[in-house]
Amino acid sequence: MTLDDLFTPQARALTPPMYGPPTQPEGVPLISLAYGLADPALFPHEELIDATAQILATDLNAALNYGPNAPALLALVAQRLRHEGVDAREDQTMLAYGSSQILGLLPQVLLTPGDSVIIEAPTFLGAVTRFRMAGARIIGVPVDAHGMDVDALEVRLKELRRAGVRPKFIYTIPTFHNPAGVTLTLERRHRLVALAAEYGVLIVEDDAYVDLRFRGAPLPPLAALDRAGWVLRVGTFSKILAPGLRMGWAHGPKALIDRLLMFKVEGSSGPFLTHLVARFAADGRLDAHIAALSAHYAAKCDLIVAALRRALPDATFEVPDGGFFIWLRLPEGITASALTPVALRHGVEFLAGTRCFADGSGDDYIRLAFSEEPAARIEQAMCRLGTAIDELRPA
Amino acid sequence: MTLDDLFTPQARALTPPMYGPPTQPEGVPLISLAYGLADPALFPHEELIDATAQILATDLNAALNYGPNAPALLALVAQRLRHEGVDAREDQTMLAYGSSQILGLLPQVLLTPGDSVIIEAPTFLGAVTRFRMAGARIIGVPVDAHGMDVDALEVRLKELRRAGVRPKFIYTIPTFHNPAGVTLTLERRHRLVALAAEYGVLIVEDDAYVDLRFRGAPLPPLAALDRAGWVLRVGTFSKILAPGLRMGWAHGPKALIDRLLMFKVEGSSGPFLTHLVARFAADGRLDAHIAALSAHYAAKCDLIVAALRRALPDATFEVPDGGFFIWLRLPEGITASALTPVALRHGVEFLAGTRCFADGSGDDYIRLAFSEEPAARIEQAMCRLGTAIDELRPA
Repeated sequence: MTLDDLFTPQARALTPPMYGPPTQPEGVPLISLAYGLADPALFPHEELIDATAQILATDLNAALNYGPNAPALLALVAQRLRHEGVDAREDQTMLAYGSSQILGLLPQVLLTPGDSVIIEAPTFLGAVTRFRMAGARIIGVPVDAHGMDVDALEVRLKELRRAGVRPKFIYTIPTFHNPAGVTLTLERRHRLVALAAEYGVLIVEDDAYVDLRFRGAPLPPLAALDRAGWVLRVGTFSKILAPGLRMGWAHGPKALIDRLLMFKVEGSSGPFLTHLVARFAADGRLDAHIAALSAHYAAKCDLIVAALRRALPDATFEVPDGGFFIWLRLPEGITASALTPVALRHGVEFLAGTRCFADGSGDDYIRLAFSEEPAARIEQAMCRLGTAIDELRPA
Repeated sequence: MTLDDLFTPQARALTPPMYGPPTQPEGVPLISLAYGLADPALFPHEELIDATAQILATDLNAALNYGPNAPALLALVAQRLRHEGVDAREDQTMLAYGSSQILGLLPQVLLTPGDSVIIEAPTFLGAVTRFRMAGARIIGVPVDAHGMDVDALEVRLKELRRAGVRPKFIYTIPTFHNPAGVTLTLERRHRLVALAAEYGVLIVEDDAYVDLRFRGAPLPPLAALDRAGWVLRVGTFSKILAPGLRMGWAHGPKALIDRLLMFKVEGSSGPFLTHLVARFAADGRLDAHIAALSAHYAAKCDLIVAALRRALPDATFEVPDGGFFIWLRLPEGITASALTPVALRHGVEFLAGTRCFADGSGDDYIRLAFSEEPAARIEQAMCRLGTAIDELRPA
């Protein structure tokens, strides 16, 4: 008799992930543009200490004893959604420990092995891994300069319907896409929402970056265009406050929100944390902070774009209107897999495009996150990248 | 086509819980001893503000950016376990958003519908509800003044084995039991651990109250007596720091911890929170705080015991050596269900014994939590309880 006999079949089949040592070679200290980290220079640490002091002065028991989420935070999320045109209700809104928790709970509510899920190609694979672990069949739809290719989506939906398959959901990052940096046009947004209703498929709208807009007017979220209840909108305070606080949210059909909450076994998302975030955000402080962040990241985006054009005059990429990423098509004949070790040797790290496609394609792309590193290091990183690429060019 | 068609069969079957308005009648303001809340008078709010300021001064990026749990907190938990005699390893230790998250994840790793789980009668039903939602068959073993009746446990294990049933786990609260207040003797601890190994059953040792000892020497946890790897020990910072922070932990066999972590879909338990708790606990501050808490709750326990003896000279209960609860056997002929409305009318609330037994028995018991309310109100609550009970006594 062993302990392992006691595991459910699913739990027994799981293999704990292997974590190897980091790949950093000896020599040049690395500048990493691989991860979508926030810029610590803009963490509002004084304001967070203030907010902590304030909630412990005024809401001590509500913040530190057993209890529900801070009602003010749920109200704030719903109010921000209404400001974006979503007909938001607090009883259709939930808080979670990061949007990744919501994306991780989604399979428990929606997926049985063999179910189909439509994703973008490329996409944020962190979410897709969870769908795949639940046994989902993953179907990719291409992304171009205007976001998801909704014509291609319609073709896939038709094919699937002909085969008797109703996909469970479409996972999309419509605004300042990760990794592609692009934004779904208004026309495509309308079509996407119409297709979801026509085919009876849920849209999971992951709008992690939407508030970090560098230029232009905001577009309505899919959730604002949907009148038939086919959109779950997922958001986070990670990019607009601090990822380390782990505070995300979702808004959508009540039956879905209720079930996500039932699978969120620990109950609330923390009286202390939810009070802290609500207090930080109060009195316009969050909006002011978002404005400062957007200006800051916009300047870093301009800087990486200029540095990239200097270092790689033949580089092909869309300049994003917001977010954290440049999605770079490598010069003809150069692959991410060939470039990676050379770039590491020169002291620069990026995310290989293959890490953004469920089918492992994308070796002609790399993702550059300009969010975390300070300006001078970003410029240096682009020089190093240019040198590494030149080293690989045919003589 | 409706959204509900997309849910998994399990998710479709779920019925969202109904939350009614609180039962408080008009009239007398209520003193509630119903919930095991912490005493807000002892929340270390200055220290928490200090700790927040310190981590944001010294660990800003680690606490606020994406990243893992604070290594110092995992080290602290393991070190505290070793101090209790557990052969603790950090790679067999996990952090979670409260011990309730671990108890909620447990069914995902261990339970398929129809599996058997052994619990104590009475017990903390908050945990058992999760086991039952997973389709477990719940088997109760009585608790007496010395903790779980291990003879009765052995009888049940034998019966089950004869019927070809191997239960998945035994859920026990060995120290300062919730609700019974009692503590499992050393001899019974040895027997419980031996029975688990003999029958190949996991022990889930929920030791939420263990640090709040009023008198006597600590007993070794089951995890310290187990040499064969059949104990998952679950603990929390809720009672020794603040429930609202939501920080719990577990230690046990690596295969089990690894799987619990894989089902914890959101990843870490928050860089900010784990750094905050670790910093608060550092430099002996947690131990000093626990000493202050134990003295404080010991005084409140003495106070409720004295008040109860004055108000109800024929009351029957064990005086606990620690924890939050008095488990009161009601005078002959008086039931919790009859007493509840009368007590509410007199302005006192408690937890009916029926809320502590999986089979709904226990109507001759009530649980009195002396943890939250201030001393004067506890005394007043006992007067009110005495009056309410007297009202129900046969003339």
